Amino acid sequence: MTNDGQGAAAPRLNETLKAALEQRFGERFSVSHGVREHHGRDESIYPLTLPEGVVFAESTEDVVDLVKLCRAHHCPIVPWGAGSSIEGQLLAIRGGITLDMSRMNRIVSVAAEDLLVTVQAGVTRKQLNQELHDTGLFFPIDPGADASIGGMASTRASGTNAVRYGTMRENVLALTVVTAEGKVVHTGTHARKSSAGYDLTRLFVGAEGTLGIITEVTLRLHPLPEAVSAAVVNFPSAEQAVNVVIQAIQLGVPLARCEFLDPPAIRAINAYSKMDLREGYTLFFEFHGSPAGVAEQVELVQQLAADEGGTDFAWAEKPEERTRLWNARHDAYFAGLQMRPGARAISTDTCVPISRLAASVEGARKLLEASGFPSLIVGHVGDGNFHCLILVDVDNPDEVARAEALNREIVSLALSLGGTCTGEHGIGLHKMDFLETEAGAEGVALMARIKAALDPEGLFNPGKMLR
Amino acid sequence: MTNDGQGAAAPRLNETLKAALEQRFGERFSVSHGVREHHGRDESIYPLTLPEGVVFAESTEDVVDLVKLCRAHHCPIVPWGAGSSIEGQLLAIRGGITLDMSRMNRIVSVAAEDLLVTVQAGVTRKQLNQELHDTGLFFPIDPGADASIGGMASTRASGTNAVRYGTMRENVLALTVVTAEGKVVHTGTHARKSSAGYDLTRLFVGAEGTLGIITEVTLRLHPLPEAVSAAVVNFPSAEQAVNVVIQAIQLGVPLARCEFLDPPAIRAINAYSKMDLREGYTLFFEFHGSPAGVAEQVELVQQLAADEGGTDFAWAEKPEERTRLWNARHDAYFAGLQMRPGARAISTDTCVPISRLAASVEGARKLLEASGFPSLIVGHVGDGNFHCLILVDVDNPDEVARAEALNREIVSLALSLGGTCTGEHGIGLHKMDFLETEAGAEGVALMARIKAALDPEGLFNPGKMLR
Repeated sequence: MTNDGQGAAAPRLNETLKAALEQRFGERFSVSHGVREHHGRDESIYPLTLPEGVVFAESTEDVVDLVKLCRAHHCPIVPWGAGSSIEGQLLAIRGGITLDMSRMNRIVSVAAEDLLVTVQAGVTRKQLNQELHDTGLFFPIDPGADASIGGMASTRASGTNAVRYGTMRENVLALTVVTAEGKVVHTGTHARKSSAGYDLTRLFVGAEGTLGIITEVTLRLHPLPEAVSAAVVNFPSAEQAVNVVIQAIQLGVPLARCEFLDPPAIRAINAYSKMDLREGYTLFFEFHGSPAGVAEQVELVQQLAADEGGTDFAWAEKPEERTRLWNARHDAYFAGLQMRPGARAISTDTCVPISRLAASVEGARKLLEASGFPSLIVGHVGDGNFHCLILVDVDNPDEVARAEALNREIVSLALSLGGTCTGEHGIGLHKMDFLETEAGAEGVALMARIKAALDPEGLFNPGKMLR
Repeated sequence: MTNDGQGAAAPRLNETLKAALEQRFGERFSVSHGVREHHGRDESIYPLTLPEGVVFAESTEDVVDLVKLCRAHHCPIVPWGAGSSIEGQLLAIRGGITLDMSRMNRIVSVAAEDLLVTVQAGVTRKQLNQELHDTGLFFPIDPGADASIGGMASTRASGTNAVRYGTMRENVLALTVVTAEGKVVHTGTHARKSSAGYDLTRLFVGAEGTLGIITEVTLRLHPLPEAVSAAVVNFPSAEQAVNVVIQAIQLGVPLARCEFLDPPAIRAINAYSKMDLREGYTLFFEFHGSPAGVAEQVELVQQLAADEGGTDFAWAEKPEERTRLWNARHDAYFAGLQMRPGARAISTDTCVPISRLAASVEGARKLLEASGFPSLIVGHVGDGNFHCLILVDVDNPDEVARAEALNREIVSLALSLGGTCTGEHGIGLHKMDFLETEAGAEGVALMARIKAALDPEGLFNPGKMLR
């Protein structure tokens, strides 16, 4: 496990810059060990990597001034939302300042009649949905962690609802971004679609903070469905479970959620979330629509499941039952970590065309079994996206090397099936080799040109995504 | 009406390049007046602008070789699909070669089980749907003209179905692109979502051929709906019609199509398409879903329409009736041209947030009425997007100037309401001022940096979108 120079970074925060940051940001600039340590780790397996200082922004103007000051001193800036990235995106491997956006947590405006909301980048997804509570609208995108909206935009995140409502790619309508020159750019408008120029919004979405710093995000919202129904179904094999998903997608069933969990995942969430689900290959479904529409979807999926040997249909009709089910699903990552106390997790994130999903899951399952690692599989299979959690002792280099080799095999299989190395987690430090394989040398060369054009001095999150 | 130097372009096709193109492309390279004239005009009001030569590509390799030859001689290349752009995108205003993609009209592969198809860029949307006929799938995006898929990707086109199925932004999954260096880049994979690196796919979608030449496109397909129903409803005023649309969108009704036509538009299509629709403010609806789902949507929209004074509900239940209705809608542009024989049309293309749609349509309608120009309004109002067709005598400079001033007023109104100057037509030659207002100087500066990074010599479609 290399960290591309982490720990070895030459100091970038010189005394002049330090004094200037102190003057501009006062207590909101910190070089204390505790604050730096809090910003020195994400959910990846990389070791603690301290930034040289941390600035807490409260406005776009703060970010502009920070960029101008850091630029004058060639000092890197790493934007930080909720600390929940899992590919090392947040680590200040080249030193410099971590820009903590968590105090930019204001809902700027709700335009309920346009199904839109504008938020500061540090707002988290749960906070947003709480604040939308009385509008009859919701924001569907739900990675496991309570991530920040800016972070979710930056990794092009998705979650359990993407099969129906899309990812951050489809749900970010406009952005406020601070450029490497310290200018403020507003991308997009409040219109649902536009053909006006290059799609800057979607260039910054998924750029992992390497092209500009997102300070505000305008999101599409969705009406709360009139009727909701959730179900849990068991299957004799992973393949049979996945076959039901493939057929439902091909038939155009508008599944709202469709999650796969293997027996170790069920075991882990039973223990962690005090559930009593049967330990089998399991699908969690959720259906949204009118009462009649939901009834139709349920009937069709129930028939498909029965044809593939599905059993033990259990319904979660009440809101509190559904909340419990989906909270357990969202906590699967943390539940998995408890399978091997003290271990950390490498999570694969492959996504394949739906017809190759059974081959991809079955192939991954066999590789995991052969490896002997404690592991589990969960995933947003309606999108063709699933995660293998491989639990490793990060103090054992041989074990880490074997786990990384296993990860590579699972990714190689997905790429050979027409898939991607990352459905929703991003590249960060961890998947740069895979990006080169997937996008090709020419694709990566184009990305590098864009990076050089927008951030010629390599100020923003250097050393991530591109070498 | 300026054409940014058209006609005044210095020759870029020198004798050496000409000889090289003759040798490489034989009869597929032409400098004949007839062929050049055929490529010298689109559906905009700009005058005939001849390229110096035309190359007909049959493969990605043809495009690579053309780019390498032209690059060596600093000769511009303007990609050309079906000739249906309406903002001057296809005009070779800086001279050079027009690259006709219409012979690249092969369906490369259909992956019906993944709801995907890969086509060469010259395939048209109607050809594609004919070839998909036996798959139970369809490609929903339908600009009025039978445009090429490469051209539709390049203008980020949409059409009547976008309210339900999205635009080219949402439906292009992967591209093959030839870069300005003559390299072949494959963007995206066949997975439905990805967080792997910068979103090159969505950078080339909407780039109007200025960043690279799209040679193949992988598109998402959709299952043909089980049930379809279409309806025509009349309203006493534009505002009442639009209010129904606003309410339906806010309630989350999954409208498949929702088109507005004003009385002059109805008059025009009655005459052109031999219809006998009542001349009023009219909505065309289409509903897709299961039989029960469609029945629910119909009931709800009928109620909303009745509450706003909607009358004369007419149903088009049979496929042939629906085809006739939608063909008439698609021909509205050509029908409009007949309102003033010999005239050409300036089409606005504003798109606003749904809550501002009534203000935007009513404002535009008043401006049109006050202008005295023959005009009509049609639009994809479910997206907040509508077109005012202003019929002008292009030989009368005063009239053209007045029409352009009217266009500017309608766009300014939309921008002031949080909208965009172009929902689906693109910038081309015609909307560069509007782009600067909408995206701001900093936004346009970022776009210019991207252009310079990917096409430093300005080889691809020079003089379009960006100055």
